[in-house]
Amino acid sequence: MDSATCLWWMRANLTADVHAVCIDYHQRHRIELEYAAVLAQQATVATHTVLEIDLASIGGSPLTDDNIDVPSASEDQQSVTVVPYRNLLFVAAAAARAQSLEIDDIYIAPVRDDSAAYRDCRREFYDSLEQTLRLGAPADGRITIHTPFVDMWKRDVIRIGLELGVPYEMTHTCYSGRRPACGICDACVERIDAFRANGVADPLDYEIDIDWA
Amino acid sequence: MDSATCLWWMRANLTADVHAVCIDYHQRHRIELEYAAVLAQQATVATHTVLEIDLASIGGSPLTDDNIDVPSASEDQQSVTVVPYRNLLFVAAAAARAQSLEIDDIYIAPVRDDSAAYRDCRREFYDSLEQTLRLGAPADGRITIHTPFVDMWKRDVIRIGLELGVPYEMTHTCYSGRRPACGICDACVERIDAFRANGVADPLDYEIDIDWA
Repeated sequence: MDSATCLWWMRANLTADVHAVCIDYHQRHRIELEYAAVLAQQATVATHTVLEIDLASIGGSPLTDDNIDVPSASEDQQSVTVVPYRNLLFVAAAAARAQSLEIDDIYIAPVRDDSAAYRDCRREFYDSLEQTLRLGAPADGRITIHTPFVDMWKRDVIRIGLELGVPYEMTHTCYSGRRPACGICDACVERIDAFRANGVADPLDYEIDIDWA
Repeated sequence: MDSATCLWWMRANLTADVHAVCIDYHQRHRIELEYAAVLAQQATVATHTVLEIDLASIGGSPLTDDNIDVPSASEDQQSVTVVPYRNLLFVAAAAARAQSLEIDDIYIAPVRDDSAAYRDCRREFYDSLEQTLRLGAPADGRITIHTPFVDMWKRDVIRIGLELGVPYEMTHTCYSGRRPACGICDACVERIDAFRANGVADPLDYEIDIDWA
């Protein structure tokens, strides 16, 4: 949802071509890759690359290990869904792709709500990573990592997306990987709360009844 | 060769368990993965993980693209064999694995000879990456990236390895992925020169005749 909003935001605010990179990290909710492909097509990106990084073989996270249950939001265990250094790997992969395209600008869409549980969603992390990328670049070049939503709450990101006409029914959020979405995992509950804060019903289907008022 | 020497050096100098991580990045010379598995077993590592990162889909390097020829050393084009941000991705993957094992120490074996063509072989890059890893860590923890050979020439690394009994006939270096090794790609030529500087014949088989004196 955040990435799709970022893509629509980029189309509205930038004139340059956009090259999408999706990561297949063997996530339980890999169905998100199918929806990402549709969204990339709708947004008429210049290229769309799916890059495989097998984080499942690292072990330890319910997002990649079918033997560990995804906790419900009420269990207050968002930290167990951390896939270690996931955003570092994502940006490193995007940087490699950018290098091959001779592009200097990378966009990623962490939001403020995530920064408590996921330290790799904080701007200070991306500032440091920018420096690391510059020092490790194969040639001179100054990659910039843009995080347009890093100081914004998810509810405000959705408000922007609604104004831009993001087709939210084609985004995927549920960590359990279910369509209709489970409505009870941490990711679903955050999404539902963010739509509710805007007084708007999420166009996505859920397994449970939700009061959008 | 450098990684194998590092592993034997770790066995000689550390008492902790060693967990090996190999990266299958769809390299043309992926035969190195088979030899790495044998070496890991000989070194009796605690665990050996092969992690897949599909850098081939990024494109642009002869090391992952069969349509681009690996240059011979005489072409003086080591820079074209750069896979962008390869070591960043390797260390990020190793850090994710380390996190899942609750380990704080990562070892990687860049050598001084590589630092001209590959900027991600320089210590300043690893210092910056250490900082990035600390800022992006899923929990408090201070990962240290050890680069024991970063200031040493390859010939000196081999000297250490010969003293430690590294089975160099089981290592793989050739970028063309050939066994016997081609003897003319950049990686082969560097290796041959390093053995020659020690006045020792490389126990590896080559396609071409080599004068070790």
